Amino acid sequence: MPNAVEVIKAKRDGGRLTDEQIDWVVAAYTGGAVAEEQMAALAMAILLRGMDAAETARWTQAMIDSGDRLDLAGSGRPLADKHSTGGVGDKITLPLVPLVAACGAAVPQLSGRGLGHTGGTLDKLEAIPGWRASLTDEEIRAQLAEVGAVICATTPRLAPADRKLYALRDVTGTVESVPLIASSIMSKKIAEGTDALVLDVKVGSGAFMKTPEQAGELAVAMLEIAAVHGLRCAALITDMSVPLGRAVGNALEVVEAVEVLRGGGPADVVELTVRLAREMLALVGLGPPHGPDPAEVLASGAAYPVWRAMITAQGGDPDAPLPVAGTVEPLLAERSGVFAGWDAYPVGVAAWLLGAGRARKEDAVDPAAGVRLLADPGEPVVAGQPLLELHTDRPGTLAGARASLAGAARYAEDGAPAGRPPLVLTTFGAADPVAGP
Amino acid sequence: MPNAVEVIKAKRDGGRLTDEQIDWVVAAYTGGAVAEEQMAALAMAILLRGMDAAETARWTQAMIDSGDRLDLAGSGRPLADKHSTGGVGDKITLPLVPLVAACGAAVPQLSGRGLGHTGGTLDKLEAIPGWRASLTDEEIRAQLAEVGAVICATTPRLAPADRKLYALRDVTGTVESVPLIASSIMSKKIAEGTDALVLDVKVGSGAFMKTPEQAGELAVAMLEIAAVHGLRCAALITDMSVPLGRAVGNALEVVEAVEVLRGGGPADVVELTVRLAREMLALVGLGPPHGPDPAEVLASGAAYPVWRAMITAQGGDPDAPLPVAGTVEPLLAERSGVFAGWDAYPVGVAAWLLGAGRARKEDAVDPAAGVRLLADPGEPVVAGQPLLELHTDRPGTLAGARASLAGAARYAEDGAPAGRPPLVLTTFGAADPVAGP
Repeated sequence: MPNAVEVIKAKRDGGRLTDEQIDWVVAAYTGGAVAEEQMAALAMAILLRGMDAAETARWTQAMIDSGDRLDLAGSGRPLADKHSTGGVGDKITLPLVPLVAACGAAVPQLSGRGLGHTGGTLDKLEAIPGWRASLTDEEIRAQLAEVGAVICATTPRLAPADRKLYALRDVTGTVESVPLIASSIMSKKIAEGTDALVLDVKVGSGAFMKTPEQAGELAVAMLEIAAVHGLRCAALITDMSVPLGRAVGNALEVVEAVEVLRGGGPADVVELTVRLAREMLALVGLGPPHGPDPAEVLASGAAYPVWRAMITAQGGDPDAPLPVAGTVEPLLAERSGVFAGWDAYPVGVAAWLLGAGRARKEDAVDPAAGVRLLADPGEPVVAGQPLLELHTDRPGTLAGARASLAGAARYAEDGAPAGRPPLVLTTFGAADPVAGP
Repeated sequence: MPNAVEVIKAKRDGGRLTDEQIDWVVAAYTGGAVAEEQMAALAMAILLRGMDAAETARWTQAMIDSGDRLDLAGSGRPLADKHSTGGVGDKITLPLVPLVAACGAAVPQLSGRGLGHTGGTLDKLEAIPGWRASLTDEEIRAQLAEVGAVICATTPRLAPADRKLYALRDVTGTVESVPLIASSIMSKKIAEGTDALVLDVKVGSGAFMKTPEQAGELAVAMLEIAAVHGLRCAALITDMSVPLGRAVGNALEVVEAVEVLRGGGPADVVELTVRLAREMLALVGLGPPHGPDPAEVLASGAAYPVWRAMITAQGGDPDAPLPVAGTVEPLLAERSGVFAGWDAYPVGVAAWLLGAGRARKEDAVDPAAGVRLLADPGEPVVAGQPLLELHTDRPGTLAGARASLAGAARYAEDGAPAGRPPLVLTTFGAADPVAGP
């Protein structure tokens, strides 16, 4: 039987871990026989030495095997899910899940909470009065059959090794390992039992991956895991150098998502929602010409009733007023010129400081806090015009948020491209040989 | 103020740690504010990324500052100590400490227990009935003044960060880091308050360092720390490809040390004892011609009364019979030829299996267990002649010890050099500019 120090030393010295070593160390860590400090040393060795595709696939399998797999067969529809690596203003899941359900697939979106400046889907939906994130397996199955759309919390028995390992990586400087990120994401999605998965790998200042190379490496690592596990999978690498849409913050993003579901909303949010829906539908054989065009479904407002049914099924009131911040202050343009968009990262930090995000897992988020962007890239603005609104219930945070935003507005006069950067940088699409059905 | 994840990431990404980061992380780890898993990740990052001489010296200082420094001034003699990185049959401390005291210096040898196959000085002395390892600071000072020689356990308040960190490194595959090994050794020796230190860095199959390059790197790292801290220091790199002397095991090694102190004993033990004594005395200005030649002192038996006084001062009876193993079995030569010596590592493992060492810190050692070597390198032997004796109180361990020794006897006919390999490979002596007084 392997022992922890031998496994650590094997990776430390640049070797491959055997299947037996991976199976043993993940199971023993989950069960407590491998101590936190031992897994921390191993995680650092993996971060610095790497794991190849076969090791990463096996590590993913071991994390899946640490818990149960959901059995979601029986909804009568093919299952398609989506994962985003997270970004500023990324509320795409909210319109996307009802849209894909409206087009004939079922979407089991098991999701996590946000940490840091990128926000979490559950945090956003919890701004809706009455809505609850936790469902039983039976409730998930019933809602998939009836509504076709579920966004809920990951169940505790799904890849418990990943939950334990992620909490450890978070405090030990070992988050930034491509094989560990890829296996963390994919273990939960494979255990969830979806038939197909579309990955939205974000790149830019507001994303975890700062360069297209890093994003591509992560996308390929996840596609390789999917291939080994027989999961139909596609990946888009998309821009996160500027925020998505005009709202950043929990209730503010729900409002924007509803606008999109009713056929309106910012063009970039609409475009990315449709692109991802097309990929998801293509993977399960429901894309045009075998099914409706999601662009038309979204524009027609036909996905909005699915949203209402999805929210209602989880106790939420889709007509209830959403929380509104006690303090709303404008941030004014300091100069005149052609506005070229906000740098995503300081906007995310500002929203986080105002209360939209959490610094530690145990923190609560403020549903009303966040920012609204008042100008689109390419728009001429004049000095003194409001460029952005700061929303908060904690006025003491305003100064910090303003400081974060200093210099974050870009202007064409400084050489920034005036329009929005292209949304989709690279596609590893449904027709890709690695990921094809 | 630094935080743990930032410090870990700085080293992980190949940067230098600042003095402030080092001071903070060592103190916070000692106090519990930095968790074991965080230090484990940092230790792995240090192992894989390294620390330069300035970082290592600062790390050493921070470990010293985690506890108290002993004040040993007042014995009326210069203080000289020695550290060995450990080897099979390395009982040199036992004759060396009384010898150096007999030559006019005082030796405060604060020591640890053995782990693994190399044994520990305290374990060896505890084979003597009544002898106790733990002394108060006051007892250490009094014994140094009266006898000039102390071998005792490290006091708990000396570099507590090192004790905690070493236990962590032991279970996380992070022992093998030259800066961490060097700072661990040197922090305790500097905190102990010796005026001068001689390092015996062992190299070969029976030692921790397997190649002269590794041993040289460790020696240089320790000499650099000594230079920064103003400690007079010399280092010898010495052979550990064959066992030292003819006895491996606690009581067996005490017997051999007493032979040496009475003017006899194996030539290699005598030679290394004298070499190290010369270096220690030179560092404190008591070497020939300023003091007696330790070779003559040892050969005359004049160090033996100091040994007796040292043992007696710590409650031991130097005349008491030592424990004898219940089972003593010979291992016979399988062939005739010119014997070329034992490979050190399997001999160490055999003694350890027989009960002389411990696998875990909490294990007890068997004072009587070990092996006696019956043939010297270069000696002609005939098949069936006893080559080695196995001593144990646990006969169930004999088969494992014999298995470890299979093939460990070397013969000149196979191309092995017939004589003992040179004992001292490299000297960073007292005259060395780095280490000179």
